[in-house]
Amino acid sequence: MSDRPPILVTMGDPVGIGPEIVARAFVQGAAAGCVVVGAVDVLRRAMALRADPWPVARLESPTGVRAVPPRCLPVWQPAGLDRGLAALEWGRVDARAGAAAAACIEAAVRAVQSGEGAALVTAPVNKAALAAAGVPFAGHTEMLQSLAGGVPVRMMLANDELRVVLVTIHQSLRRAIDAVTFDAVLQTLRIAQRSGHGTRIAVAGLNPHAGEDGLFGDEEQRIIAPAVVAARAEGIDAHGPFAPDTVFMRARRGEFDLVVAMTHDHGLIPVKYLGVEHGVNVTLGLPFVRTSPDHGTAFDIAGRGVADASSLAAAIRWARRGIDP
Amino acid sequence: MSDRPPILVTMGDPVGIGPEIVARAFVQGAAAGCVVVGAVDVLRRAMALRADPWPVARLESPTGVRAVPPRCLPVWQPAGLDRGLAALEWGRVDARAGAAAAACIEAAVRAVQSGEGAALVTAPVNKAALAAAGVPFAGHTEMLQSLAGGVPVRMMLANDELRVVLVTIHQSLRRAIDAVTFDAVLQTLRIAQRSGHGTRIAVAGLNPHAGEDGLFGDEEQRIIAPAVVAARAEGIDAHGPFAPDTVFMRARRGEFDLVVAMTHDHGLIPVKYLGVEHGVNVTLGLPFVRTSPDHGTAFDIAGRGVADASSLAAAIRWARRGIDP
Repeated sequence: MSDRPPILVTMGDPVGIGPEIVARAFVQGAAAGCVVVGAVDVLRRAMALRADPWPVARLESPTGVRAVPPRCLPVWQPAGLDRGLAALEWGRVDARAGAAAAACIEAAVRAVQSGEGAALVTAPVNKAALAAAGVPFAGHTEMLQSLAGGVPVRMMLANDELRVVLVTIHQSLRRAIDAVTFDAVLQTLRIAQRSGHGTRIAVAGLNPHAGEDGLFGDEEQRIIAPAVVAARAEGIDAHGPFAPDTVFMRARRGEFDLVVAMTHDHGLIPVKYLGVEHGVNVTLGLPFVRTSPDHGTAFDIAGRGVADASSLAAAIRWARRGIDP
Repeated sequence: MSDRPPILVTMGDPVGIGPEIVARAFVQGAAAGCVVVGAVDVLRRAMALRADPWPVARLESPTGVRAVPPRCLPVWQPAGLDRGLAALEWGRVDARAGAAAAACIEAAVRAVQSGEGAALVTAPVNKAALAAAGVPFAGHTEMLQSLAGGVPVRMMLANDELRVVLVTIHQSLRRAIDAVTFDAVLQTLRIAQRSGHGTRIAVAGLNPHAGEDGLFGDEEQRIIAPAVVAARAEGIDAHGPFAPDTVFMRARRGEFDLVVAMTHDHGLIPVKYLGVEHGVNVTLGLPFVRTSPDHGTAFDIAGRGVADASSLAAAIRWARRGIDP
């Protein structure tokens, strides 16, 4: 087997669909060579939902995966996890679940930083459970940014046809408009260019028709166009701002490699339109590769063994591509 | 032939792609039985761009179409049009072109109102040309609303998979947020329900994750959810507000017939994502059926005979469906 360290896959919230889609991704062959970072008993419970469960192989360290026989689920359990996680009710917000999910993310990041992991793929966490556990981050992106020392990061959502990098994410639309600044747009363009996910970058406007020459808003003229000009002066192949309603279609047809969108929903609506199961979330700007599925913990169906692992499998594929382009 | 009056198709801006896509739609058979409202010489010039031009048959009134032989383009020219329109340069904003486009729309509306036309399909106009001509409307929708006596109207964008009705349209995103009021949302739901385009209506939120319980904005809680409740009390089968990034995908898969979107681009991004040539603009709330293609005058390619008539053909199909459901 390869000498490269394995890709690390966190279990996510123990009472969400994370553990069962992780189990499914392994059984379906999408996660060969990867290591789960999670609680052994939680992964055993998730495997037990299947008609064809694999035994769990507990690793002392991620690199121990090389000694694991086929058809075993390699799990590295970080120290200090709660012992009662597998007794928690499926789909109910729980502080212990949130704390365990966060502990696994932190341990996985430390392992990647120390060279024991090649990349990070994260199963979904629950915002309310993290908050109940006193974790001071709204989600993965913020937590990873902090663990990486506060570097500027951006969320990229991608599927096989479209790659979108977001200037603003989890805030009200009103506040997002205020957060569309020259610096934020230029920084996004720099991060997008350095991402290795393509060079021809289209910038979507904020307003209908990209402001129609100032008639429907002036952010394009005051902020976005000057940031595009500044990016081009740095050698970034940025274009726009273009009307938001047609730029994604143009990128899908191959005119651009990446689209920078000003708001969460301008960017996510087209990525998700053809189906969330194909979407992947990639954090750009981190000093390591991190991807995740483009959906949440789905508490309403957790523990039934019906959750679809396609987006997690796609996230693993994107992580492999990220470390071996 | 049918005793029903014909569908009227306006030529649009004489120096945009309107005349040539109208000519193409007739030659391709998509406009059989329809009548063009426009300048005879403009339509002759558009036909001359083709390898297989049809002669123009000038009508005294729209109902004269019944006497027109096959493979002729039936054109009804309203009184008072400028005589030099066919000499204007393709693709250059011109006040005379704007004035003629507006005169044809007004004549066509009057004909529909007097029973000489069954429905209205409009080819694209140019905002700058209308403004240069002193026409006090930003576009078709506003002009039609005024000609119909100021009734509340809404823009619906539709293709074979998705129908979206917009609460706000041509204003800056910042102003659009202010225009998302209880009355505006409820009125949109009423107009959508009465449109005959479906009964199961999903309402998209304004903010990411539909506000995530107020964490990312409170418009869903203060405005949109109460409007949905009020609509349901009136018997409207309205649902939501839902997260904007997944509701269009859900409607595409058949969960809803229509989606009400708060902003121009939340609604238009998914409709246009798979290709503008399939999209149709339908004005809801008018006392007559009106549709149009989902693109503009395309001055950059006007006069070359290369413009695609698919969206106009789709608009004619939707108009036929609207008068004969």
